[in-house]
Amino acid sequence: MGGDHGPAITVGAALDCLQSIPRLQLSLIGDLAAINRNLARNLGESVLSRLNTVEAAAQAPDQEPPAQVLRKQGTSLHVAMQMVQSGQAAACVSAGDSGSLMALGNSLLKNLPGIRRPAICAMIPGLDDQCSYLLDAGANVDCNAEAMRQFAWMGSIMARALGAGDRPGVALLNIGTEPGKGGRQIQQAATLLAADSGLNYLGFVEARDLFRAKAEVIVCDGLIGNIAIKSCEATAQLVVEHGNALLRTDPWLRLFNLLTRKSLTGVIQSVDPATYNGACLLGLKGIVVKSHGSSRREDFRQAIQRAYQAAVFGLDRVLNERLEELATG
Amino acid sequence: MGGDHGPAITVGAALDCLQSIPRLQLSLIGDLAAINRNLARNLGESVLSRLNTVEAAAQAPDQEPPAQVLRKQGTSLHVAMQMVQSGQAAACVSAGDSGSLMALGNSLLKNLPGIRRPAICAMIPGLDDQCSYLLDAGANVDCNAEAMRQFAWMGSIMARALGAGDRPGVALLNIGTEPGKGGRQIQQAATLLAADSGLNYLGFVEARDLFRAKAEVIVCDGLIGNIAIKSCEATAQLVVEHGNALLRTDPWLRLFNLLTRKSLTGVIQSVDPATYNGACLLGLKGIVVKSHGSSRREDFRQAIQRAYQAAVFGLDRVLNERLEELATG
Repeated sequence: MGGDHGPAITVGAALDCLQSIPRLQLSLIGDLAAINRNLARNLGESVLSRLNTVEAAAQAPDQEPPAQVLRKQGTSLHVAMQMVQSGQAAACVSAGDSGSLMALGNSLLKNLPGIRRPAICAMIPGLDDQCSYLLDAGANVDCNAEAMRQFAWMGSIMARALGAGDRPGVALLNIGTEPGKGGRQIQQAATLLAADSGLNYLGFVEARDLFRAKAEVIVCDGLIGNIAIKSCEATAQLVVEHGNALLRTDPWLRLFNLLTRKSLTGVIQSVDPATYNGACLLGLKGIVVKSHGSSRREDFRQAIQRAYQAAVFGLDRVLNERLEELATG
Repeated sequence: MGGDHGPAITVGAALDCLQSIPRLQLSLIGDLAAINRNLARNLGESVLSRLNTVEAAAQAPDQEPPAQVLRKQGTSLHVAMQMVQSGQAAACVSAGDSGSLMALGNSLLKNLPGIRRPAICAMIPGLDDQCSYLLDAGANVDCNAEAMRQFAWMGSIMARALGAGDRPGVALLNIGTEPGKGGRQIQQAATLLAADSGLNYLGFVEARDLFRAKAEVIVCDGLIGNIAIKSCEATAQLVVEHGNALLRTDPWLRLFNLLTRKSLTGVIQSVDPATYNGACLLGLKGIVVKSHGSSRREDFRQAIQRAYQAAVFGLDRVLNERLEELATG
């Protein structure tokens, strides 16, 4: 039910995924009337047998403070988290508000060992098929150095689990790369990360190098991470809109488009960060994937796919094991 | 001499500007041998008569702390600032390090009335020919609420001076638009800005709406502003690189490019934030424009042009007058 468009895009994305991933089973949770309105009529038996709908009619008004969200039973997000908590579901995907997601995750799923503040971990595509994981991408603000060290641990475990080698590099996102740069918060975090022998701390990275894969893990305060990711998305969106405007007005481009059946928009969208949609909430005992609020069908499909991969991989189990090792020294 | 490429791009950009702006006079300051190597041989009398070179041979090593920069006499930046201080020059343009620029500006030019921390003010292009001014884009970190109020004043005066109407809207860049969002620093700034009757404070704006011109003035801590601007630039750069890679490999695109003599790169670069290069250092008694460190010839040309416009307009004088009015109540 979450996000700007609700079931109008989430249901279609769910059906797409059921069609493309043969082992996937999905529960659609929310207002059944709205869900059913968006279900295609001619679903095959293979899709139907792996699709399940769950009534959760309570409304969670937009922009409610997390404390309210926690008290409200029977919302689609609440029911979804309960299903992860009880083991009925392996993962939860939502385009709802990050704050609500985090509050409910904290309260129902609990945190992994040693983790005080779970974080949103976004994948940043690099050139040459490399990528970085940035966290926190917006779950917490005013993070202290210890919180950022925990982000570094979780990011490192995730990067290593997903093939980045044994000692993935960790960098702090900062205004410059020289050791003295940045404010008190970043300086304290740098000291703590550098002193932690469990981390391969590389130093600072600037936002202009975000796509250069200078480090497998990029750590920052959630406010900074949110601003970075959203600025990238805003620019990509601007490129797409400019491209579309040109396609409408430039006769050569229109001809080109007709001749090649390949739209400039398509070319440009290949760099759209939305393609890499689906940020994991790391630090919870359970897999929760956040799709951005303005998700279109394709974006939400990506988020479901990411949750499926994390579940198949057992990301929460791997994190739990490694963090327990770290906690017990 | 500043920036990644020094005179190799700054001299060419200067000549371009002398050719396109008939009333412009320029002094090129630095290592005369390096400057002369980059001066074209066949300059017309009209360009030569408005061009002046000034020897400033002292080297300012990269990444020197601002205190060192201040002590070092005879660097190109030091001499340039002295020329603005003495009135020999109406404005200074540099692709050098922001920290050095700010330290020298503070020390030689002094701050405008009531301003404790000058800020870098970047122009953000919007759709439909609107634009926003974002400050601080990276001169200060750990800004308190009072510093952000001063940024709001300066941004408002600048926006008003440049045609944004009598009461330009001011917004704080934040992780969300709901009143409770963001950390302590932003909450305190919000309270102060809302209480200031001299400002048209609109509330929070998210980074995803950076190009939507939701407010004429966008205020933030310099760390946040730097991350936002650099993330936008990184994305634009990625688009350009992807476009170029496609042009090399896709035969249809190459044919299209040949047929129309219009490169995809050109189309994509039309949204490149570098086109809007040249951020003003606001808060100093004098006009100082910062071009980004990786400036190419075209970027640096934009920065010179912006400095020329600010000088013709008398931006420093206008700011000085309005801030004096505000200071005396």
